[in-house]
Amino acid sequence: MSTPTATAWQNRPAPTTAQDWIARAAEVAAVLATDAAARDRAGATPYAEVQLLKDSGLVTLLGPVEHGGAGQDWPTAYRVVREVAKADGSIGQLLGYHYLWNWAARLVGTREQWEHVEAEAARNRWFFGGAVNPRDNDVVVTEDGDDLVFTGRKTFSTGSKVSDVTVLEGVLEGTDQHVFAIVPSDSEGLTFHDDWDNIGQRLTESGSVTIDGVRTPWSSAAGYVDKRFQARTYNTLNVPTIQLVFVNFYLGIAGGALETAATYTRSKTRPWLHGGHERAVDEPYVIDTYGDLTAKLWAAEALADAVAAEGQKLHDDPDAVTEQARGEFEVRVAAVKARATDVALEVTSRIFEVTGARSTASAEGLDRFWRNVRTHTLHDPVAYKRREVGRWVLEGELPEPTWYS
Amino acid sequence: MSTPTATAWQNRPAPTTAQDWIARAAEVAAVLATDAAARDRAGATPYAEVQLLKDSGLVTLLGPVEHGGAGQDWPTAYRVVREVAKADGSIGQLLGYHYLWNWAARLVGTREQWEHVEAEAARNRWFFGGAVNPRDNDVVVTEDGDDLVFTGRKTFSTGSKVSDVTVLEGVLEGTDQHVFAIVPSDSEGLTFHDDWDNIGQRLTESGSVTIDGVRTPWSSAAGYVDKRFQARTYNTLNVPTIQLVFVNFYLGIAGGALETAATYTRSKTRPWLHGGHERAVDEPYVIDTYGDLTAKLWAAEALADAVAAEGQKLHDDPDAVTEQARGEFEVRVAAVKARATDVALEVTSRIFEVTGARSTASAEGLDRFWRNVRTHTLHDPVAYKRREVGRWVLEGELPEPTWYS
Amino acid sequence: MSTPTATAWQNRPAPTTAQDWIARAAEVAAVLATDAAARDRAGATPYAEVQLLKDSGLVTLLGPVEHGGAGQDWPTAYRVVREVAKADGSIGQLLGYHYLWNWAARLVGTREQWEHVEAEAARNRWFFGGAVNPRDNDVVVTEDGDDLVFTGRKTFSTGSKVSDVTVLEGVLEGTDQHVFAIVPSDSEGLTFHDDWDNIGQRLTESGSVTIDGVRTPWSSAAGYVDKRFQARTYNTLNVPTIQLVFVNFYLGIAGGALETAATYTRSKTRPWLHGGHERAVDEPYVIDTYGDLTAKLWAAEALADAVAAEGQKLHDDPDAVTEQARGEFEVRVAAVKARATDVALEVTSRIFEVTGARSTASAEGLDRFWRNVRTHTLHDPVAYKRREVGRWVLEGELPEPTWYS
Amino acid sequence: MSTPTATAWQNRPAPTTAQDWIARAAEVAAVLATDAAARDRAGATPYAEVQLLKDSGLVTLLGPVEHGGAGQDWPTAYRVVREVAKADGSIGQLLGYHYLWNWAARLVGTREQWEHVEAEAARNRWFFGGAVNPRDNDVVVTEDGDDLVFTGRKTFSTGSKVSDVTVLEGVLEGTDQHVFAIVPSDSEGLTFHDDWDNIGQRLTESGSVTIDGVRTPWSSAAGYVDKRFQARTYNTLNVPTIQLVFVNFYLGIAGGALETAATYTRSKTRPWLHGGHERAVDEPYVIDTYGDLTAKLWAAEALADAVAAEGQKLHDDPDAVTEQARGEFEVRVAAVKARATDVALEVTSRIFEVTGARSTASAEGLDRFWRNVRTHTLHDPVAYKRREVGRWVLEGELPEPTWYS
Repeated sequence: MSTPTATAWQNRPAPTTAQDWIARAAEVAAVLATDAAARDRAGATPYAEVQLLKDSGLVTLLGPVEHGGAGQDWPTAYRVVREVAKADGSIGQLLGYHYLWNWAARLVGTREQWEHVEAEAARNRWFFGGAVNPRDNDVVVTEDGDDLVFTGRKTFSTGSKVSDVTVLEGVLEGTDQHVFAIVPSDSEGLTFHDDWDNIGQRLTESGSVTIDGVRTPWSSAAGYVDKRFQARTYNTLNVPTIQLVFVNFYLGIAGGALETAATYTRSKTRPWLHGGHERAVDEPYVIDTYGDLTAKLWAAEALADAVAAEGQKLHDDPDAVTEQARGEFEVRVAAVKARATDVALEVTSRIFEVTGARSTASAEGLDRFWRNVRTHTLHDPVAYKRREVGRWVLEGELPEPTWYS
Repeated sequence: MSTPTATAWQNRPAPTTAQDWIARAAEVAAVLATDAAARDRAGATPYAEVQLLKDSGLVTLLGPVEHGGAGQDWPTAYRVVREVAKADGSIGQLLGYHYLWNWAARLVGTREQWEHVEAEAARNRWFFGGAVNPRDNDVVVTEDGDDLVFTGRKTFSTGSKVSDVTVLEGVLEGTDQHVFAIVPSDSEGLTFHDDWDNIGQRLTESGSVTIDGVRTPWSSAAGYVDKRFQARTYNTLNVPTIQLVFVNFYLGIAGGALETAATYTRSKTRPWLHGGHERAVDEPYVIDTYGDLTAKLWAAEALADAVAAEGQKLHDDPDAVTEQARGEFEVRVAAVKARATDVALEVTSRIFEVTGARSTASAEGLDRFWRNVRTHTLHDPVAYKRREVGRWVLEGELPEPTWYS
Repeated sequence: MSTPTATAWQNRPAPTTAQDWIARAAEVAAVLATDAAARDRAGATPYAEVQLLKDSGLVTLLGPVEHGGAGQDWPTAYRVVREVAKADGSIGQLLGYHYLWNWAARLVGTREQWEHVEAEAARNRWFFGGAVNPRDNDVVVTEDGDDLVFTGRKTFSTGSKVSDVTVLEGVLEGTDQHVFAIVPSDSEGLTFHDDWDNIGQRLTESGSVTIDGVRTPWSSAAGYVDKRFQARTYNTLNVPTIQLVFVNFYLGIAGGALETAATYTRSKTRPWLHGGHERAVDEPYVIDTYGDLTAKLWAAEALADAVAAEGQKLHDDPDAVTEQARGEFEVRVAAVKARATDVALEVTSRIFEVTGARSTASAEGLDRFWRNVRTHTLHDPVAYKRREVGRWVLEGELPEPTWYS
Repeated sequence: MSTPTATAWQNRPAPTTAQDWIARAAEVAAVLATDAAARDRAGATPYAEVQLLKDSGLVTLLGPVEHGGAGQDWPTAYRVVREVAKADGSIGQLLGYHYLWNWAARLVGTREQWEHVEAEAARNRWFFGGAVNPRDNDVVVTEDGDDLVFTGRKTFSTGSKVSDVTVLEGVLEGTDQHVFAIVPSDSEGLTFHDDWDNIGQRLTESGSVTIDGVRTPWSSAAGYVDKRFQARTYNTLNVPTIQLVFVNFYLGIAGGALETAATYTRSKTRPWLHGGHERAVDEPYVIDTYGDLTAKLWAAEALADAVAAEGQKLHDDPDAVTEQARGEFEVRVAAVKARATDVALEVTSRIFEVTGARSTASAEGLDRFWRNVRTHTLHDPVAYKRREVGRWVLEGELPEPTWYS
């Protein structure tokens, strides 16, 4: 990756509209695309790539304008994630998770807390990671005077080494109360084990983390006032909000696969020996396949955009979020999760039919799209997403808010 | 169908927003739904149903406000068609075609012409039909003084007997110039043969028509000034505009199928004898199927809505429509046509899996949804729609404007 | 239907091999095909068609040679059902059910009983119907001296008016013992209500039946010796045996749909106006669709044939049938049921894509294939068939023998 | 891989029936499975694995009994390939190609030639490779006295370093006559470049080969008598025969994927946190997916078996093979190729849905199944296989024999 220097980005006028920011993301993607296949094979920690996200301004997309952020909304953030993921699914995921963890302050914290966090994050261009995998129940939070002390282990911690700050999550000892807090990623006691070695999303630094007595003041426990959590329905938007992050990098990966394949078909694929066509792009089955896959992708993208807009209405007025509104949003998110999963898997597997035998050369790296989608779409079983939709259609049942629904 | 009287509708305040009009359409649909299955079997001419569309205000939805129309735009019209089609695919098609033919004046005609037509249509609540099937090339237009005389035959003429006016189309003798003109449906020489007997969309009155010397003044030849057609790119929006009509009644039929099925499943479907569930709505396969079909339908609907909005930008400034913009719109329409076709066929065939064996009773009429979708989705081969998308993705090729692309 | 006379068939040498019998079935199908669409619309009771099955020798296909039967086995019977169903799904179902009920004596009865029944059936060319719908539990069997008296009602009774004999099923009063017995279809007390009016398989005479004190001697209670049922594992082959009947008429209907469509495409379908091909059969999408559907159908047929052969091994040595062997056979049948269902639905819905818009004319009757498949594939939920296969793959679990598994 | 020693195999009685040989193949597969994932990652040349194929007797499966072969037929060979491929797709491919090239003598050569080759091959347990990629037209054969001299390059040469002998193919200079000859793989002038680095089938040693003046006597030119090729229709069975090899290792890979996944689901997959099931194997979606995938696989396998049997009839009487019979066989093979491709891709991609997120760990290597299928199914475009079937169904057109059809 031959990254433009930070100065090069700074010398250009900052984007102002959502459309401009999406175009900026496409520029970043173009840089990432130059060696995405090679970086996937190498599996190196994406320090330079995260720096690129910072330099290009994408990291502070959601940050307050007065502190140097771009002041954009979630629909724009989703589109930016999608653009970046077209070139590199891992970086798209890292950026999307960053947005989520940065926003987590607002989701869970008091106004004072999130205003502080967002200001600091924007000013310092913090890159966020999170150690919040809810299927591990083994981070315990104990009190020590005015401090909270986190101890335990999380199996997955996206961001880790490339992050500046990490959102920790644990359960207050002797209670069932969850606590979130943001700590520097280089905090003493926080050890990232660099053991993420999976078939896809290989550069997401999603390995395990040991949390050994990491301290943070009570005052930083998000949403706690006088040591009591101030619950509101808005808190439960965490799931639909991050699931839309997932959706958008799935769609980005699928879109990137399709674009990469189309370039390959145009430039390298040979027409079939006995087909009577002089160019692969004139083969009826090739044209049909691109048409079919594109139509499917567009439909999933349109639903993703529509649902993002529906969600933004909730984000715009957090205190007005009702259980009904939250539930209906979650159902819509569940539906687009199901569609994005199916479509991204189909696109990333079928592109080979239209690129041909030689496109399976390892050097092309065309399999990374499928490996990336296949890996992350298992985050939680998509069957349960269809179930949420089905229950709602049949019985008007709203999904019970959990860490996954 | 127990229709509210015209007075009943008049006594209520007219809808003002798009949302209100869509709600109004849903009300109309509720009326139509009461006996849709029975009317499908009976195959009777839908005079009362067209009257309902007039009384409820839907017929003049696109008409100018100053002449009694609702002044709504195409995205709203599409949604209204979708709502109506949920209850009755035939009536949805009739209404959608009516919108198209009413709008045809604006698409092809001079400003003077379309302002006149729209005013008259709104004031008189004309219901439009069309005799414009472009695969028949046998309507000849001859000059006779200041008149044009249409003679020939069209195989399909949606609307026919239930329409007040009919859009005729023919080729000026000795030229390759098409002429459109609006004539009263009871014009002398216009004979509707009432021979539409197909497996679906049975109430659309789409039979053949003989045109035997139907006269209309030259001045009513749409878009002609001094007997020369004033072509502009906007004229070529006819195809994407009507194909979106198709898309929306396909989606409406599918949505209606799903709602009707869900009601059946809730109220009549028995849980499986050996499944261990007490209610059909608790069967995992039932829930999964509803979830899957709903997600697919929502994605297609979202794309339909997005593409309708894209199209409206073109309608908003007809003179600014470029070939590029027209072509890209057509490609997007082609994509949603492909998706709506696939999804509507899948939904309407698979609903039976979740309603069960007894739902195949003829009296239930649940097969009409599939028959309706199956029939009209063959209007033109969807393979060629995928082809348009594929060519555009691979080579940036814009579809050549024809009567079908 | 212009049926060859009985004499015409008798004047020809009887088939001797399985292959010849399948060819004979194809001949019968050719006769049935001549007016299948018209008969479907008319919905008339298929007396003539059943007579054709008798005259052509198909009715006694499984009967003992010494009594005039053809002495063929189940795999051949399945293939014969498939051939007949190509032309007329209803007649295929009637014939398949006939084979099953004729064979039921052997499945359930004592050797003396089934030898007697098979001899009588072959000599008299009985056409069998059955009143054995197991979801109705309301036929009670009481003892009256040496007689059994059946009283109650069945919702579905395939065959009914066109059958010579009917297999009754009921529960011995005060027990949970089922009794099967064969009675003349014109028995006093047996009333067929002629109320089968469903969207498909319209000629199967599957309406409800009232059984009002129908008497039969105890000695005819199949499998009972001294009023005690002589159970053996072989009895439980009823389900896989009849489900393979279903599979084969589904595949027959699908095959008939494909052949009928191909004839239509060759002779009537027009090439697309803007496609550049002179014949529909040269359209790439048409060729691809026929290739795809045919391949899918062949795979399902091959599995049906393989499973039929596996089953025949069990039929060849009834006393050797173990629960394990029976269970594995049922799992295989469940799998082919799932495939036949999917494939038959896909074929019968997609043929229209390659026949085109005008093929939806009611007079063509091309929708009957889908309606037929759609109707009967709901006999029991195919989801539970996939479930049987899945449980076996995952845990080696054998399906518990019920009326449906 | 902890291979049984050659002695261990020799000390056991040789299989005699087809069934026994398939069981033997399953034993070999069990050995291969122990470290298949690790070997795939390592990408080492499979010397030991080929030795295992020799020691176990599989290499000489088709060889004449009198020379130490097992004297089995193609249907058995296909099943053996399938079994081996369950454990290791690469080794399955190597074995299948070996059978083909060994058999090539019989397909193309004179009786004297093939009897000699088969005797030698069986006695010496030759492992065959081939340098016969027909899309490269650059191997020229020149005459030099009684010798033929091959010079040129092939892009792909499956077997290469692990083979004992290699089938060369080239065009006689100045003619369009192809010549096949078998040469020792360590012939001077034959250089294997070890450059196969693709995403799947990584151990097939399918890299490029340079042929620099490799000599072989005219007498070894297969099928040539007095320097003239003795053509017969049987020669053209090369394509359907090898395409069935492909089909069977695709199905083997899919079957292996499904078995491996089932083992994983049973032993490692956790039930969903909020699903209410205690074991993953009780999740309805898991059961349904295994049922669905198994049914699809079984149908494709049944078709593969049926078509193999059809082909064997042709192999049994080579001189009787007509163009019609050959063409119909090719069409059937094309159909099963299409099904095997679709099913194998679906199975190998969807298994992850039922193994879960952690199964994407690189150490599990579960992605190799999809990578293997994805890579080889591009050998030639499956769209053209569907095309063969479609053309035959529509017009009775037989595929023209080429290297691919």
